[in-house]
Amino acid sequence: MINYKLTLCYDGTRYHGWQNQKNQSNTIQNKIETLLGRIFDECIEVNASGRTDAGVHARALVCSFKAENKSHLSTEDILGKMRSFLPKDIGAVALETAPERFHARYCAKGKTYVYRIWISDRPCVFERDYVYFFNQKVDVALMEEAARKIMGTHDFTPFTTNKRMKKSAVRCVDRISLSANSDEITVTVHGDGFLYNMVRIIVGTLLEVGTGKKSVDDIDRIFASSKREDAGFTVPACGLILWEVDY
Amino acid sequence: MINYKLTLCYDGTRYHGWQNQKNQSNTIQNKIETLLGRIFDECIEVNASGRTDAGVHARALVCSFKAENKSHLSTEDILGKMRSFLPKDIGAVALETAPERFHARYCAKGKTYVYRIWISDRPCVFERDYVYFFNQKVDVALMEEAARKIMGTHDFTPFTTNKRMKKSAVRCVDRISLSANSDEITVTVHGDGFLYNMVRIIVGTLLEVGTGKKSVDDIDRIFASSKREDAGFTVPACGLILWEVDY
Repeated sequence: MINYKLTLCYDGTRYHGWQNQKNQSNTIQNKIETLLGRIFDECIEVNASGRTDAGVHARALVCSFKAENKSHLSTEDILGKMRSFLPKDIGAVALETAPERFHARYCAKGKTYVYRIWISDRPCVFERDYVYFFNQKVDVALMEEAARKIMGTHDFTPFTTNKRMKKSAVRCVDRISLSANSDEITVTVHGDGFLYNMVRIIVGTLLEVGTGKKSVDDIDRIFASSKREDAGFTVPACGLILWEVDY
Repeated sequence: MINYKLTLCYDGTRYHGWQNQKNQSNTIQNKIETLLGRIFDECIEVNASGRTDAGVHARALVCSFKAENKSHLSTEDILGKMRSFLPKDIGAVALETAPERFHARYCAKGKTYVYRIWISDRPCVFERDYVYFFNQKVDVALMEEAARKIMGTHDFTPFTTNKRMKKSAVRCVDRISLSANSDEITVTVHGDGFLYNMVRIIVGTLLEVGTGKKSVDDIDRIFASSKREDAGFTVPACGLILWEVDY
């Protein structure tokens, strides 16, 4: 068996997220596994660095899979076949063989997500599927103050909608940086791992601070109460893109 | 009557071009005229700097229209209403009142078009609707040589598919510049006016030179014969964007 490391990009608009679900074949995982199954003529199971939800995009999602590769296809052959058969909204960025023990999820050391908020009333026609249209005045300096309070190692239970969580919700978020111009605020988040909806609730919380609905000090209260309802709203999926996974 | 100058951007993918046609309501002109008709509560006829074909995009198309404006709406009011009612793939960039004699088409002095050619086998997922996927090796230096021969004042009859042309086909194209990296070639064309499909046939001809199907000297032969079939193919609409109109 050969172990492969595959890097994908995709526009998540049309898909029900990465992961296969019952009665739902329109997932990225399904598209990739079906295609690889045909290329290798064997059943392939693909493990991603993490799931992305319905509508979330990826610039460089990493996944791994094992294949017998009876036909001795080279990585270039495989990549070429993938590129010619994938739909236009999914791209195969890179493919390489990996050490036997490489596993896209277990070996991931950190992830970077980018969230784009369109704050201007000027049109954003060409990138409309990749931004969240948020038509309110926001104080970016306050958002930055709140971001500094969210950064660090915390129990992020209030920042997830996963109610059946059995494992620890402690994560380390070592970077939340904002860049803003008159049209757009871009939030870049890096951490060692993320809970379900965590980035989207962090961004929603920052926006509630930026619009004055919450204060910067509320961040401490959110971590103290550890209740989902104390944190901010979940911003829409379309503005989120998985930027990079580190190993 | 007040005369208005309106600047629009749009993703042309979903539309049958700018101009209203029989049995075809899915045009940009129709969307704009219907919306302005509702805003002003009067029948509005909009004149664009020029038509764009089905699937062609615009970054800054200029149009003009006259309205009684019985409700004395300010340009900010009108622009705000337009922005809240337009579909996401059409944007109102700017609106201003214009001198009585201003007419978007008759007063246009020049236009800039940009055509994007994706030449790499790397994925282009997020901008896939705005590039032409051209998977062949091209010699950009040869394309530049050919571009210099096309530039200038010529009878551009071989570079149009309009067979019923009654007026002069002489146009001045004063700029055809190429910029290229390993993924993409971008062709920028500026001229005083363009015939039907002219930019797309110019780019198709350049690509035929770049792939060796035509020689640089063939450009002289195309102008000499003045036959459409001697020029190159018409590249697809999706790669073309009307960049700017000068007055």
